[in-house]
Amino acid sequence: MDQPDTLPQIDHQHATFTDGLTLECGVHLPRHTVAYRTYGRLNAERSNAILACHALTGDQYLAETNPLTGKPGWWEQVVGPGRPVDTDRFFVICANVLGGCMGSTGPRDPGPDGTPWGTDFPPITIRDMVRAQKRLIEHLGIARLFAVIGGSMGGMQVLDWAAAYPDAVFSAIPVATASYHSAKNIAFHEVGRQAIFADPDFQEGRYWQSARIPARGLAVARMAAHITYLSEQALTRKFGRKVQAGPAGSLFGEMFQVESYLHHQGSTFVRRFDANSYLTITRAMDYFDLAAEHGGDLAAAFRGSRTRFCVVSFSSDWLFPTAESRAIARALNRAAANVSFVEIASDKGHDAFLLDEPDFHRTLAGFLAGCAEHAGLAG
Amino acid sequence: MDQPDTLPQIDHQHATFTDGLTLECGVHLPRHTVAYRTYGRLNAERSNAILACHALTGDQYLAETNPLTGKPGWWEQVVGPGRPVDTDRFFVICANVLGGCMGSTGPRDPGPDGTPWGTDFPPITIRDMVRAQKRLIEHLGIARLFAVIGGSMGGMQVLDWAAAYPDAVFSAIPVATASYHSAKNIAFHEVGRQAIFADPDFQEGRYWQSARIPARGLAVARMAAHITYLSEQALTRKFGRKVQAGPAGSLFGEMFQVESYLHHQGSTFVRRFDANSYLTITRAMDYFDLAAEHGGDLAAAFRGSRTRFCVVSFSSDWLFPTAESRAIARALNRAAANVSFVEIASDKGHDAFLLDEPDFHRTLAGFLAGCAEHAGLAG
Repeated sequence: MDQPDTLPQIDHQHATFTDGLTLECGVHLPRHTVAYRTYGRLNAERSNAILACHALTGDQYLAETNPLTGKPGWWEQVVGPGRPVDTDRFFVICANVLGGCMGSTGPRDPGPDGTPWGTDFPPITIRDMVRAQKRLIEHLGIARLFAVIGGSMGGMQVLDWAAAYPDAVFSAIPVATASYHSAKNIAFHEVGRQAIFADPDFQEGRYWQSARIPARGLAVARMAAHITYLSEQALTRKFGRKVQAGPAGSLFGEMFQVESYLHHQGSTFVRRFDANSYLTITRAMDYFDLAAEHGGDLAAAFRGSRTRFCVVSFSSDWLFPTAESRAIARALNRAAANVSFVEIASDKGHDAFLLDEPDFHRTLAGFLAGCAEHAGLAG
Repeated sequence: MDQPDTLPQIDHQHATFTDGLTLECGVHLPRHTVAYRTYGRLNAERSNAILACHALTGDQYLAETNPLTGKPGWWEQVVGPGRPVDTDRFFVICANVLGGCMGSTGPRDPGPDGTPWGTDFPPITIRDMVRAQKRLIEHLGIARLFAVIGGSMGGMQVLDWAAAYPDAVFSAIPVATASYHSAKNIAFHEVGRQAIFADPDFQEGRYWQSARIPARGLAVARMAAHITYLSEQALTRKFGRKVQAGPAGSLFGEMFQVESYLHHQGSTFVRRFDANSYLTITRAMDYFDLAAEHGGDLAAAFRGSRTRFCVVSFSSDWLFPTAESRAIARALNRAAANVSFVEIASDKGHDAFLLDEPDFHRTLAGFLAGCAEHAGLAG
């Protein structure tokens, strides 16, 4: 892979497939790579595998130190030995999504002319991401996943897995997600994209030609998105109207702490994420509409499914409100599927799925234990 | 006034004060201008004047065609002959806020060195805006306003008027507002400001030196803000996931209608608003915290007030939620003030105060009629 920008180059564990992948947009990728990590051990029956799907800006390093940021994995509170998703019992797989920037094929990779794809990278859908993951699962010798789990965009992948490959998914846990992206959420994504486009360092996506990346635009995109991940209560509790010393020229010499926090979110993000990947993946989320693929009836996506579902939402999540999870649960009910629906009381907003939420973690552990019994999985 | 940018130059009706205005930040303006418009006629007793305060990006043209945009005034549904604020009965005044870009003294005006102030324009507070309006009211020969009314930042001015000049305010109608700006709202403002700063055409605020304005950054700021003005229901009803033909290179040749709408909001905004004014005025809102000026007790701001208050909120407003209006009403109750509080059921979000909301309009007309009786104002 060329070095198209200033993101550090890391040799991620990966599988490369040379048998071709035709994307939903019609473009054929003759070869593609899926970067992934695994935790725990696959049992002899190959029946204890759990696929965890990451969110928009997540990656495959969910239960170990991230080699790029040096920070803990994004789901260490959920996945690990003795954790709700117990790696002493389960074999957990997490793959960087297609279109991402952590080793799976994406806009930083060379396109047909040998230079990086950039904005010419073909549009990716959630289904494309899921199909790339399916190849990886087969490559690992797994015919059926014990569970697929994920929050936010990860939850969209969970729903799509269950709809596309019902026989390969024993249980499915879509968390803090929706079966389609709402007008409000598309609007927030578009603000972020416009911020990136507005940065002259974006250079129509060909920023690898210079030493500069569109850091300012990408930081603004991240700041706008980050607000949507938090609840009003969380922002008020964390920051309220507290001020701190501001840079020269700031009003009364002060700045609000919430501003400083957003600046930090923006500036750290641009050191770990690629702008073209951000454009590609936000687009994939925007285009997700599972019912639309089934004549407008979400229940039709799950008709006849034997998958056991646990749909989880958080009460203060205004990006993916509980109403959207309830709509999923109702569609599953209409399809006579096996579904439980849990709204976790939390004041932490959308980000709650990544945080210390004991009720959520108990729900996960309990549902997985119940499914293990049904599956006859050794304890 | 110099021509610091590409906004058209308009000769706005105005009053210029040469007796000096010392701002809250300590800066002394030896002269300042307040641009304003009036509607209806002041009665002989000078007792029928209503001051309408505009919101962040509003201006003084509330009940007539805007000379800059050619569009109807922003409150023509509320203010005019036979309207809820009836100009056959009342004399309505609206002034461009200090720091604005429609004729009142602001960052486009020449500073001490003769070049435009730009970002060196002193920080303005809501109180500064109110004090400039007070000078105008005195200039017009009015000792006491029959009412002060305004929505959003206009509502902040209403609250500040009532707190600063209780004897000059017979009745006060703060609409869709709060007594302080929340962490979430500060965060959204900061995203907009960062988008402006990120635009190289901003040139640290000295963009009048070139022929370019920071149009891209300002457009992104407007887009982010605009989302917060609408409710989820309004966005879904207006746009949902409807698509239209997109520009070349768009995914599947389409774009979402909500994206096109946001682009339109951004591109029209930059033709009527100045980026430095946007920075100045958003800051003024962020710093508004009426209770903080009174030892943390909002009730203390209104102790002993004889003003009659009507506090109005809209049920789907998530920028200034009903809870913040209720907190104002409770503080007024604690101060034993005369207050009614009305939450209007609406699915139009924060923008409802600008739109056709019959319940809101009936509330206004009824409250003003009641106050007119109490004031002994001839019908």
